[in-house]
Amino acid sequence: MAARLTRCRERMAEGRLSAYLITNRIDQIYLTGFTGEDGAAVVTADRVYLITDGRFDEQADREAPWAKKIVRSKGISDELTKLRRRLRWKRVGFQADCLTVAQLAAFRKALKPARLVRARPIVNDLRLCKDEHELRATRRAIAVAQDAFRATCRAIRIGMTEREIAARLEYEMLRRGASGPAFPTIVAEGANAALPHARPGDRRVRRGSAILLDWGALVDHYRSDLTRVVFVRRIRARFRRMYAAVLEAQRRAIAAVRPGTTTQAVDRAARSYLKSAGFGKAFNHSTGHGLGLDVHEAPSLGRRNPVTLKPGMVVTIEPGVYVRGVGGVRIEDDVQVTRDGAKVLTSLSADLNEMVIRG
Amino acid sequence: MAARLTRCRERMAEGRLSAYLITNRIDQIYLTGFTGEDGAAVVTADRVYLITDGRFDEQADREAPWAKKIVRSKGISDELTKLRRRLRWKRVGFQADCLTVAQLAAFRKALKPARLVRARPIVNDLRLCKDEHELRATRRAIAVAQDAFRATCRAIRIGMTEREIAARLEYEMLRRGASGPAFPTIVAEGANAALPHARPGDRRVRRGSAILLDWGALVDHYRSDLTRVVFVRRIRARFRRMYAAVLEAQRRAIAAVRPGTTTQAVDRAARSYLKSAGFGKAFNHSTGHGLGLDVHEAPSLGRRNPVTLKPGMVVTIEPGVYVRGVGGVRIEDDVQVTRDGAKVLTSLSADLNEMVIRG
Repeated sequence: MAARLTRCRERMAEGRLSAYLITNRIDQIYLTGFTGEDGAAVVTADRVYLITDGRFDEQADREAPWAKKIVRSKGISDELTKLRRRLRWKRVGFQADCLTVAQLAAFRKALKPARLVRARPIVNDLRLCKDEHELRATRRAIAVAQDAFRATCRAIRIGMTEREIAARLEYEMLRRGASGPAFPTIVAEGANAALPHARPGDRRVRRGSAILLDWGALVDHYRSDLTRVVFVRRIRARFRRMYAAVLEAQRRAIAAVRPGTTTQAVDRAARSYLKSAGFGKAFNHSTGHGLGLDVHEAPSLGRRNPVTLKPGMVVTIEPGVYVRGVGGVRIEDDVQVTRDGAKVLTSLSADLNEMVIRG
Repeated sequence: MAARLTRCRERMAEGRLSAYLITNRIDQIYLTGFTGEDGAAVVTADRVYLITDGRFDEQADREAPWAKKIVRSKGISDELTKLRRRLRWKRVGFQADCLTVAQLAAFRKALKPARLVRARPIVNDLRLCKDEHELRATRRAIAVAQDAFRATCRAIRIGMTEREIAARLEYEMLRRGASGPAFPTIVAEGANAALPHARPGDRRVRRGSAILLDWGALVDHYRSDLTRVVFVRRIRARFRRMYAAVLEAQRRAIAAVRPGTTTQAVDRAARSYLKSAGFGKAFNHSTGHGLGLDVHEAPSLGRRNPVTLKPGMVVTIEPGVYVRGVGGVRIEDDVQVTRDGAKVLTSLSADLNEMVIRG
């Protein structure tokens, strides 16, 4: 925490900010450790103020004992007014991505005569490269997700619904210490998998089903994110071709990961291969995204907005092909950018032969 | 959907809006039925435009076939520019509570020379009173939560952790058709329940444990929200007093619910009773909140911002008392405001004698 705050304050000084108002809850967890659902943090040169309500009073003491806690009785605005008066702030930075238009108007008024100015994405930049604590939590989130997947695959039977499988997978993650799924678990049988973000419903597992599972665990506030496709007893020829293409696209994208290269280049490695394999239009999303406290965080590995990869970044690599009426194949792993290239953090096989389950 | 859009358009006409930009995802579900995670809806006098990305293309067709779907290749801004040009909008309303400062700047530029103006909370107002479809979904969400609770109570054993109980409770809800928990399930043993928003951790059930469970199911996008405290084999005298006070406070609050009265009056009914019973400071949150597509929605039943109750509103009634180092008691039920007063939608007993489990 201390190192993160130091770096945050260096960047605040560059922007001549007397205070930095953190309204993004995830950034707040990153900078303070406080995970309460009501709150705003204010970072100054020598303190961190945590404004929250009575429900999170004791929790703030537990999670961020070193912060200056303010249990608000009215709105956040009132507390900001009091702080501004006492500490004589001149320029207060805000997070344009995480402050609503309504909040801006209220806070601007509350902080007068101090100026409330749009700050650069300081915390977002800090969060790009993960420290050892973060990498450990991510690895735990991956281990829990993988173990839960194996247990679930053993339990899948012909006749089960997508919903039952998703329930089982989430239960197996919770049992192993996850505080929740990292995002709503996707279990999509057959043609339902043609929707990259399908919801589990009442479709049932049949002999020959191709079942796409996209899941992750939330452990100590960090998230894993994996996708596998399993086949019940047999694999249709059409799926063999789709699977082989996606696996090779993923292999190429992972091989392209190294410091100094761009997110765009990694995306291109997967995309151009799928195009050459005849699946260009069937790959309708980006190749991956940053992963950490949020399930989708910077950098995005897509066609636009190139970001240069640096050691410590953790990203998903997840090409996919989707055919309406038939189904979809996506293979997703989590990789860490190291000085030597990609370190694949997930250890679950994606070998097609091992994807066949008895059901 | 049609009736909702008609009422929305009436309100748009009052504000002379050529278009209304819906960026609140829940409002979007309410008005269009589309549940994709990327999107903005634009309501005009004769159409609804749904802007989303490739991942949700097929889903948009399924969920909102009558809407004019726009699969964006770049940002939402680009699509807004094209629409504005074609449809010659003059005034476009936005949702100040659900648009970030960064989005406002981008959209304002994209829509020029049309004016982007802060709209009144039209959809929020519409959502206050639930229609039959919504009430049915809420009742289903309650039924699933109640059945899952009963099954979980039978499975609680001495030695189980809070986390295991929460996992079981969520699994039982998913098995019964919930698409997820309505919010992160709270299971708090003993002193951990002194935090109104405790997270389930590694504390174990013991003989004499008081365990607070706050949970709900998400069914067809509607949510239930209940709280009960169960006691393992015996009830300590201190908890008997706390429980009796909370139960009576809840009874009084429910009795105060009727059309024409205010949220403040309902809160006061619970709060003044708890104060007289010596628990004034131990009740540190509001008495309840609206419930529907969101787990916390308008109206809030607190000390401030009175809202007049109307038939069709669905609210939680959930007074509680919390004693540091000892624990907490909260009893929460979901009630519908009807012409005759409160209709309690939940049917789970809160009788203290029935709250004792074998463990």
